[in-house]
Amino acid sequence: MNPLKLAPATREHARSLDSGDPLRDFRDRFLLDDDVIYLDGNSLGALPRTTVERMREVVSEQWGNRLIRGWDEGWLELPLTVGDRLGSLLGAGAGELVIADSTTVCFYKLARAALDLRPGRRQIVTDLDNFPTDRYVLEGIAQAGDAHIDWLRCDRTLGPRVEDVAAVIGANTALVTFSHVSYRSGFMAAMAAISRLAHEAGALTLWDLSHSAGSVPVALHEDGADLAVGCTYKYLSGGPGAPAYMYADRRLLAELRQPIWGWLGRRDPFAMGPGYLPADGIRRLLSGSPPVLALTAVDEGIKLVAEAGMERIHAKAMALTDFAIALVDARLAQLHFSIASPRNRLRRGAHVAVAHGEAEALCAELIARGVIVDFRGPDVIRLGLSPLTTRFVDVWDAVEALRALVD
Amino acid sequence: MNPLKLAPATREHARSLDSGDPLRDFRDRFLLDDDVIYLDGNSLGALPRTTVERMREVVSEQWGNRLIRGWDEGWLELPLTVGDRLGSLLGAGAGELVIADSTTVCFYKLARAALDLRPGRRQIVTDLDNFPTDRYVLEGIAQAGDAHIDWLRCDRTLGPRVEDVAAVIGANTALVTFSHVSYRSGFMAAMAAISRLAHEAGALTLWDLSHSAGSVPVALHEDGADLAVGCTYKYLSGGPGAPAYMYADRRLLAELRQPIWGWLGRRDPFAMGPGYLPADGIRRLLSGSPPVLALTAVDEGIKLVAEAGMERIHAKAMALTDFAIALVDARLAQLHFSIASPRNRLRRGAHVAVAHGEAEALCAELIARGVIVDFRGPDVIRLGLSPLTTRFVDVWDAVEALRALVD
Repeated sequence: MNPLKLAPATREHARSLDSGDPLRDFRDRFLLDDDVIYLDGNSLGALPRTTVERMREVVSEQWGNRLIRGWDEGWLELPLTVGDRLGSLLGAGAGELVIADSTTVCFYKLARAALDLRPGRRQIVTDLDNFPTDRYVLEGIAQAGDAHIDWLRCDRTLGPRVEDVAAVIGANTALVTFSHVSYRSGFMAAMAAISRLAHEAGALTLWDLSHSAGSVPVALHEDGADLAVGCTYKYLSGGPGAPAYMYADRRLLAELRQPIWGWLGRRDPFAMGPGYLPADGIRRLLSGSPPVLALTAVDEGIKLVAEAGMERIHAKAMALTDFAIALVDARLAQLHFSIASPRNRLRRGAHVAVAHGEAEALCAELIARGVIVDFRGPDVIRLGLSPLTTRFVDVWDAVEALRALVD
Repeated sequence: MNPLKLAPATREHARSLDSGDPLRDFRDRFLLDDDVIYLDGNSLGALPRTTVERMREVVSEQWGNRLIRGWDEGWLELPLTVGDRLGSLLGAGAGELVIADSTTVCFYKLARAALDLRPGRRQIVTDLDNFPTDRYVLEGIAQAGDAHIDWLRCDRTLGPRVEDVAAVIGANTALVTFSHVSYRSGFMAAMAAISRLAHEAGALTLWDLSHSAGSVPVALHEDGADLAVGCTYKYLSGGPGAPAYMYADRRLLAELRQPIWGWLGRRDPFAMGPGYLPADGIRRLLSGSPPVLALTAVDEGIKLVAEAGMERIHAKAMALTDFAIALVDARLAQLHFSIASPRNRLRRGAHVAVAHGEAEALCAELIARGVIVDFRGPDVIRLGLSPLTTRFVDVWDAVEALRALVD
């Protein structure tokens, strides 16, 4: 399991791991500056080379030449067609996933929708270390008088545990919501077990897949997820501020209502008729006009992930994070660095949290030296090891750069 | 006033009006197919040539090369910097306008915010012919139990009149909201008079500028608007599904709360700390990550409008719509076409509604012949005369195409 136990800890060893990597050729499918070691693809995925041409085409040929006719020639369907392409990577069926809005707006819509599906129940369960925007949205909903939140306090390296959830949910629980992979520690929550628990209590689950989609297996149907949202600009390489997505189990769709009643979520929108009637199917989650340019970039990123395949991507995510953990243990532990991510590779996303008392300053120094990582308070350096763009040698070089800084 | 009274109604006359048009050179700043007569810039503005290069740059150079560093190098400020550029065209001060989300989501946020600013008051006033998404959003808010709507029934050619508003508002009115320019008739509502009435009753106003921004003068401050939203893909040429904007009078900002509490609307978002605290100023209207690629296209469209100048744009909008109305009167009235837009040029946006019993079929035929207009039920052909891209000769040719179809 530990690559350093199997081979000498040298840069050559890292290079040999790269040579044996079945995904090694994918790196060239992205535009990446060789002077930079980019370990932040978990925050903003790199630019796929084909996206450059797709963007030129949607701007100059579609918008420029087809003008308003573009809406009838595919644009209106993009949220659903790109959604289906992504859904098939996440264990969703056709017509269960749609791309729209920002993750925050999507999360708001589905959290409110879940509460409306469980009238009379007022409890929301989440964890104190959930991603900020999810926490804030829930606070806003609670403050509006619709619910109260029970905040789980989790181990900082791990995340919400099944037994912690079991201890708080009950007949008043409307919604159980967590990040599938934690933004800080990389902990992967037990989607199937938590969903089962929630359902036994009569509650719904809402998963934030932002840090898992495109890096680890997600099996929405199989694991019993009711609702999910996520962002497309991390492992899915959709571009800065790319639109997000919403998933809803098809068994919920007929009853599902979201609070932002816009024309594109209405049945027969271009009739522009009186009175809102939700559209059939997943389209009812839409509100405003689809962001065509941005959706085109998202589509291209998703295609690359689909081509590489989630099984190979996950295998590489585990190998890269194993390698990073082994290197930190072997070469940085004596310099007061420690691992703040799960050591169980099956409970881990594709990034590794490395804790150090001077993490913030060290991050700034690393970035100044072209090793792009990010800081998450109070003391975490995140090494994002996006499987399609990260080499084992990048991990080696980043660890050595940290060693050189502190030594 | 009537160009047909001043000169013979010939194609040559239209060409002479084009020769005298001070904005005539702006058409070449857009990519436009000469085989098409594009009279739908009120629905999707044409592609500015410089946008092609700006999009290439933001994709390949910013996203591709700067990667995550782009957020610190200007991306996070884009909603405000582009917002200020647009605000200065709409009579807003710096820090009063921000670009984000879709028009629908923006409208939802500000309608909810207005109700929260007027606790105890439950009446919303709007008109039955308001743009569908605005009507649906209000219905959703009302159905959630927060308000009830009083729907004004307006003359189909005109829109909400001051006296109609005066007749229904009172001590229970929280929000008065209309489109500034009506999407169907092109009627321009009396923003100053209606805002004054609303204020006298203690209510707030929320204006949808989608069909006015970039085509007619908008004086948000001067006319006493409290809140406004609008879309950027029409006269502002921001591209298909481009993000929208929210305006709030700075006197309201300290008290203003919107319902979707996201990380980018929080004070010090990257602290990722516990508890939501609204950011200072207009930033509190944000929720999720700014759509960087789409915002870049919006910025370029706004720059072109700013360069042309709202005064010249409005003068041309009036001249084009006058010309279209005169041609319809002179050459189509005997074929059962009639004008369904205001005849007063000062109460009119930049499109003309032409009513005919066979409007829907005629629109399809026109489009098949390369004259791109749009249909709005039950019987309206909209001629969108976007001032920067429409020539007088286009109006002439479109009217003649209609004549040929019916004759």
